[in-house]
Amino acid sequence: MQENVNKTSISALGEFGLIDHITQHVKLRNSSSIKGIGDDCAVIKFDNDKQIVVTTDLLVEGIHFDVSYTPLKHLGYKSVVVNLSDVYAMNAQPRQITVSLAFSSRYTLEAIEELYSGILLAAEAYGVDVVGGDTTSATYGLTISITAVGEAKPEDIVLRSGAKEHDLIVVSGDLGAAYMGLQILNREKEVWKENPEIQPDLDGNDYVLERQLKPESRKDIVSLLQQLGVKPSSMIDISDGLASEIKHICKASKVGAKIYEDKLPIDPQTYTKAREFNIDPTTVALSGGEDYELLMTIAQADFDKIKGNPNLTVIGHITSDANVCKLITKGDSEVDLKAQGWDSFTK
Amino acid sequence: MQENVNKTSISALGEFGLIDHITQHVKLRNSSSIKGIGDDCAVIKFDNDKQIVVTTDLLVEGIHFDVSYTPLKHLGYKSVVVNLSDVYAMNAQPRQITVSLAFSSRYTLEAIEELYSGILLAAEAYGVDVVGGDTTSATYGLTISITAVGEAKPEDIVLRSGAKEHDLIVVSGDLGAAYMGLQILNREKEVWKENPEIQPDLDGNDYVLERQLKPESRKDIVSLLQQLGVKPSSMIDISDGLASEIKHICKASKVGAKIYEDKLPIDPQTYTKAREFNIDPTTVALSGGEDYELLMTIAQADFDKIKGNPNLTVIGHITSDANVCKLITKGDSEVDLKAQGWDSFTK
Repeated sequence: MQENVNKTSISALGEFGLIDHITQHVKLRNSSSIKGIGDDCAVIKFDNDKQIVVTTDLLVEGIHFDVSYTPLKHLGYKSVVVNLSDVYAMNAQPRQITVSLAFSSRYTLEAIEELYSGILLAAEAYGVDVVGGDTTSATYGLTISITAVGEAKPEDIVLRSGAKEHDLIVVSGDLGAAYMGLQILNREKEVWKENPEIQPDLDGNDYVLERQLKPESRKDIVSLLQQLGVKPSSMIDISDGLASEIKHICKASKVGAKIYEDKLPIDPQTYTKAREFNIDPTTVALSGGEDYELLMTIAQADFDKIKGNPNLTVIGHITSDANVCKLITKGDSEVDLKAQGWDSFTK
Repeated sequence: MQENVNKTSISALGEFGLIDHITQHVKLRNSSSIKGIGDDCAVIKFDNDKQIVVTTDLLVEGIHFDVSYTPLKHLGYKSVVVNLSDVYAMNAQPRQITVSLAFSSRYTLEAIEELYSGILLAAEAYGVDVVGGDTTSATYGLTISITAVGEAKPEDIVLRSGAKEHDLIVVSGDLGAAYMGLQILNREKEVWKENPEIQPDLDGNDYVLERQLKPESRKDIVSLLQQLGVKPSSMIDISDGLASEIKHICKASKVGAKIYEDKLPIDPQTYTKAREFNIDPTTVALSGGEDYELLMTIAQADFDKIKGNPNLTVIGHITSDANVCKLITKGDSEVDLKAQGWDSFTK
């Protein structure tokens, strides 16, 4: 963590002083947010034809982020984005979040303000309201727990379980960049630990670094699908790596999948960096994780609607072999798709 | 933490194996729970005339609980109860919870099963569904983040901000017991650290220990108020101590309060233990915290409806002096009510 020039200990404010201070700029934008911060619960009311979606994520220092190279504002932004990504993966619209923070005395008021400014920036960018949360001290490190609440018409909601044989497997954006960004940050951290005088060499890595440090969530894809008149048969967001997510869809839908190595969307910078680190770019795309892209299946009949759209890539199709997931390599051989996706317990 | 005879490392299961394992007994009870664990979000649908309430709490090892004397099953139960208490404080009914856990490798599968069994026991006792969550490793300790979702008719919801001059201040149950339970547990821990051969002396302290280790939330009071035809003008749950909560109500309602020392409901065991520890029982009742009782204000016209009810005690009344909170002592002098409530940042 960068040292702050101005340091204010939070014990001087206390919990309620801190909450008043960091939430003073919180505004409610959505008509569905009836009552925000300041009572025992937030109160929400969606239109009568809507269902409610709820998701929650826990981000833990030393496991999900390293404050030695993660600006706290970016961390706050990313903490919100990873939650909203789960809401978009339901083909729903996020409206409210609650934000809970636990942190040690190492974190000053200025540090928490930085973190919260990123949280509020993301809330503004995605049009969601911060309606509640909890703030507490911790013995060690920083833990961020965010819950997102969203809405959708029942007929619009897309689960993981609707994929059918012959459906096309489609991903938004490109894959593996966030993982390569992380590799670069870790490398530069090691260099810095050896010699703190050396400035980190991050030039020319803007795209992969931004994908790691300040990812966006695919709100635009949910809108695009609506415009195109395409309702996916199943959808999931790619947080732990493409291969792992495909297996989730196959398990929930009781189907299999075939994906094609040469179809995987990989940005040139990701590709170059993977080669530089002697990592197979395909492995990075399949197992890198933290892409926050959307993986979906669509009926073949919808292919013409998405054809040629630069935001969507068809990478394979669904088969009837339950839980059999295959990768067709560039050399045209068929191998089992391995889910080496990120797992905090086994990494 | 007690050592487990059978120890299974969670790294052998991985995150998804662990989730499958601990959630295999999760059932959905409420018709409002459309889709539970197993997708990017839970899906909920309440009746059209209902509003949604949402609350979240973060419990951190070493701050909110000490696993050296807290059975993990009790801890799981309490983690749910403290959230539901916030829903009841809105005069609402909890229906769903999400449960997020972060824990170090010190926690075995059996330990997490114990914790989860308490969570599920509380969910059953209060009729709520576990519909989602997140599970991750941590560098240090155990963190529990629970979000509760509930429903209420708009006209039934009670905020902190509705207290009016002359309203009666009413509390459910009795105060200070959980704090005395904590004092006993801490004392016995110190004795044990000095001499691990000595068995802890917990006899005769059942009530205060249970109030600390396995508190209940006042679902019954919300039902009782409905039966009595009483809608409080304001309500809050007592988590940080009565004095602190009275001040929250006064701040939100822009009123003042007068409470009477001789009216504070204190259980005889709490009283005796406080004397034993040389602590003023009134201080314990005002500032002990973790009571999870409900503090409410009611119109004077409703007094006859609650009069003589053993679950409800009138302890004072609301005044027009904004934010002026007074305690009338047993000696009939008027002193400022001090909120020395529990605060994790200043304790």
